[in-house]
Amino acid sequence: MLTHINESGRAKMVDVGEKGETLRIATARGRIKMLPETFDRIMNGGVKKGDVLAVAQVAGVMGAKRTSDLVPMCHPIFLTGVDLTFTPDEAAAAIEIEAVARTVGRTGVEMEALTAVTTAALTIYDMVKAMDRTMVIDEIKLVQKSGGKSGDFVLEAE
Amino acid sequence: MLTHINESGRAKMVDVGEKGETLRIATARGRIKMLPETFDRIMNGGVKKGDVLAVAQVAGVMGAKRTSDLVPMCHPIFLTGVDLTFTPDEAAAAIEIEAVARTVGRTGVEMEALTAVTTAALTIYDMVKAMDRTMVIDEIKLVQKSGGKSGDFVLEAE
Amino acid sequence: MLTHINESGRAKMVDVGEKGETLRIATARGRIKMLPETFDRIMNGGVKKGDVLAVAQVAGVMGAKRTSDLVPMCHPIFLTGVDLTFTPDEAAAAIEIEAVARTVGRTGVEMEALTAVTTAALTIYDMVKAMDRTMVIDEIKLVQKSGGKSGDFVLEAE
Amino acid sequence: MLTHINESGRAKMVDVGEKGETLRIATARGRIKMLPETFDRIMNGGVKKGDVLAVAQVAGVMGAKRTSDLVPMCHPIFLTGVDLTFTPDEAAAAIEIEAVARTVGRTGVEMEALTAVTTAALTIYDMVKAMDRTMVIDEIKLVQKSGGKSGDFVLEAE
Amino acid sequence: MLTHINESGRAKMVDVGEKGETLRIATARGRIKMLPETFDRIMNGGVKKGDVLAVAQVAGVMGAKRTSDLVPMCHPIFLTGVDLTFTPDEAAAAIEIEAVARTVGRTGVEMEALTAVTTAALTIYDMVKAMDRTMVIDEIKLVQKSGGKSGDFVLEAE
Amino acid sequence: MLTHINESGRAKMVDVGEKGETLRIATARGRIKMLPETFDRIMNGGVKKGDVLAVAQVAGVMGAKRTSDLVPMCHPIFLTGVDLTFTPDEAAAAIEIEAVARTVGRTGVEMEALTAVTTAALTIYDMVKAMDRTMVIDEIKLVQKSGGKSGDFVLEAE
Repeated sequence: MLTHINESGRAKMVDVGEKGETLRIATARGRIKMLPETFDRIMNGGVKKGDVLAVAQVAGVMGAKRTSDLVPMCHPIFLTGVDLTFTPDEAAAAIEIEAVARTVGRTGVEMEALTAVTTAALTIYDMVKAMDRTMVIDEIKLVQKSGGKSGDFVLEAE
Repeated sequence: MLTHINESGRAKMVDVGEKGETLRIATARGRIKMLPETFDRIMNGGVKKGDVLAVAQVAGVMGAKRTSDLVPMCHPIFLTGVDLTFTPDEAAAAIEIEAVARTVGRTGVEMEALTAVTTAALTIYDMVKAMDRTMVIDEIKLVQKSGGKSGDFVLEAE
Repeated sequence: MLTHINESGRAKMVDVGEKGETLRIATARGRIKMLPETFDRIMNGGVKKGDVLAVAQVAGVMGAKRTSDLVPMCHPIFLTGVDLTFTPDEAAAAIEIEAVARTVGRTGVEMEALTAVTTAALTIYDMVKAMDRTMVIDEIKLVQKSGGKSGDFVLEAE
Repeated sequence: MLTHINESGRAKMVDVGEKGETLRIATARGRIKMLPETFDRIMNGGVKKGDVLAVAQVAGVMGAKRTSDLVPMCHPIFLTGVDLTFTPDEAAAAIEIEAVARTVGRTGVEMEALTAVTTAALTIYDMVKAMDRTMVIDEIKLVQKSGGKSGDFVLEAE
Repeated sequence: MLTHINESGRAKMVDVGEKGETLRIATARGRIKMLPETFDRIMNGGVKKGDVLAVAQVAGVMGAKRTSDLVPMCHPIFLTGVDLTFTPDEAAAAIEIEAVARTVGRTGVEMEALTAVTTAALTIYDMVKAMDRTMVIDEIKLVQKSGGKSGDFVLEAE
Repeated sequence: MLTHINESGRAKMVDVGEKGETLRIATARGRIKMLPETFDRIMNGGVKKGDVLAVAQVAGVMGAKRTSDLVPMCHPIFLTGVDLTFTPDEAAAAIEIEAVARTVGRTGVEMEALTAVTTAALTIYDMVKAMDRTMVIDEIKLVQKSGGKSGDFVLEAE
């Protein structure tokens, strides 16, 4: 059953009022692949190291807070913490983005972690798109989740 | 040179006041891969066909309008039109998302098209995540772009 | 006494910190009246049945979440659930909109239910306004409310 | 034809890039009916005259600016002006709300005027709901519209 | 140690999930200085007394609710109450703005009180800037704070 | 006459539809004063130099884009560029913030430049408030403005 669908077959915001408030943590990951010279410019070139990533970091945190504004059936949530990490993959000319979202609440924070990752990726894209139109945002997925009645989850082979 | 970086090495919103107002169109694409039973549920199962995609469609259009709220150095823009298309890929248990954004303005609309795609993908994810935690949002990229001084662009092999 | 007015006679956001967290539910209703041909087009015509209403449904849910952004003295709230139902009234060429909002919190959710109804009505209006400029949004009211110290409420003759 | 529907029968934001930029004005009207004592309190009672309406005025102007955030297929717009007028109707214990929205642009501003009216009405509702749960927001409609290719419109009998 | 900085030296939204929910109150203050004739116009002139301040009051309350949208590392919060007071200082041709924010939650509300003050000040500025370009917004500071583990705080000499 | 006040003495968003589209630039400035050890920590201490300021820079740019959401009678605007500069004043243990906003439009961008400055200042405040509760945000003012019918403006002694 798709829980987000009501009796008329239309979308609703599922009621979570019965669920208990528990500590919930979700980790999502994604990557943005680019030309080697674009990668090089972000990591080393011309500008103070990491500035593009500093902006993407802020965007990711703010994006996580906007999740319920963007994703229609998502509950508004009191996020207690958000953090992002960027890991350069020089061989692939890619930057791996990981976001961890936390709350003490009635719903999970998977969507917040995923939105942090996509917003950070879009921000990196925006800041270097003048020099590279072939970038690809890729492999955005949930890698871990804890808290809530449905139990913990760890993506295999991670 | 990264145009979004100022003389102190910090991020700025690049001035586009000198640019002319031209018709600009951008097309972005991405996909969300899932378990075959999740794919089947979205396409045929139980609920009115397409309802998940109807919500994702609305979310994608609204997401495009929020681009400059989410992506820090993006200009606010008068979007003149946004449309999304979903193409099911049954063999891969994936849904391909394409978004076209248009404006008559001083900056391109690549970020708007890309944000429409990611927001639609996140919305599909949200609505079926209760039955599938292994979904992956993938291959988000610009496929076409016209208008503006930098000339037209068509991604090869598309 | 108007609780939203402070000692200087100006508006304030009333403090609800002393109130207990209880389950609160509110149901609001409204309708949009139109020309018979407009009604017919929405319900049966040309496009996939219900598409206008599917968009209005999403808009209503998202509107409920924006209530405290729109209504100045409204408290931000953790909505636990929102659902909308559309009932066609063919004789009157009208669509009745009902929204139910729920929370576990310190303030009621009447405004959220009412905002869901008005946002859904405005969305229907927007999508068919090209063919009908005489539509009227009407009879928006609270029909039921439970939870909170002021006790339950049911509008008479409903 | 419903212009907001694409070839797949899904909603889109109609492209207006071909339309010319013209001066566009729209006037919308609505009313909120209440108990005589509620009406009296708003107009004369206890607090500085008009304070509830001053808040509703601000909310209406700000609501007009949020229209494209709320109504999914509405275009973002450069509103050049918004004004609201409140006319008390003592016999009916109602307050009539009129909003005029203006722009120089490619799309009309009916939705902005209507959203100003509904947001102002919701704000009045919110500020006095503690003393009156039987209020009704009513007769929200477009009364006049000028500019654009579809020509001027004046609601009959207004 | 700057708590908002993660191990990579980048900004994060600090996790407050371990903190208890307590009653938290913060009071902030600021002022806007102007030409004597501007001050006179706001306080007595031509228009209904206090109208500029009524708009600033609403803006301040709404600004407080937008704090976590504006200040990147701020937590979203359930504000239970916000109030603003304006005190004219005729000798200095200045208006003093005080805002009190309250919540029952895991983080303090200093930023909400400060944002209410700055938003109110910017609103006053906006409404009279056509007649005075020399206004200065000044002395914005926290004057009192209670609740939370770090203990109460009262600014000296206040 | 206060242009933001309508005939009933209430606030309106002044119509600027008659004004021409011209290049408009505004520069605003402000400062945040703190304890010497707080200043030292931001400039040199422990973390990668400048990280607090990098976050404030992003917040300032994004804040400028939110101006018309925050300041009730401000027009929505197509900002063509925003840039911020931070100048440390070691002797005073203060950081000076300057923001330049640009547009090609019908209204000035003073409020956008001022909002960029206040948002950046609030962000610095937020990130170091755990170690210093005595910070003061100060001297926020317009220092220069060009474009528009009212002519250019340069604050004396700047």
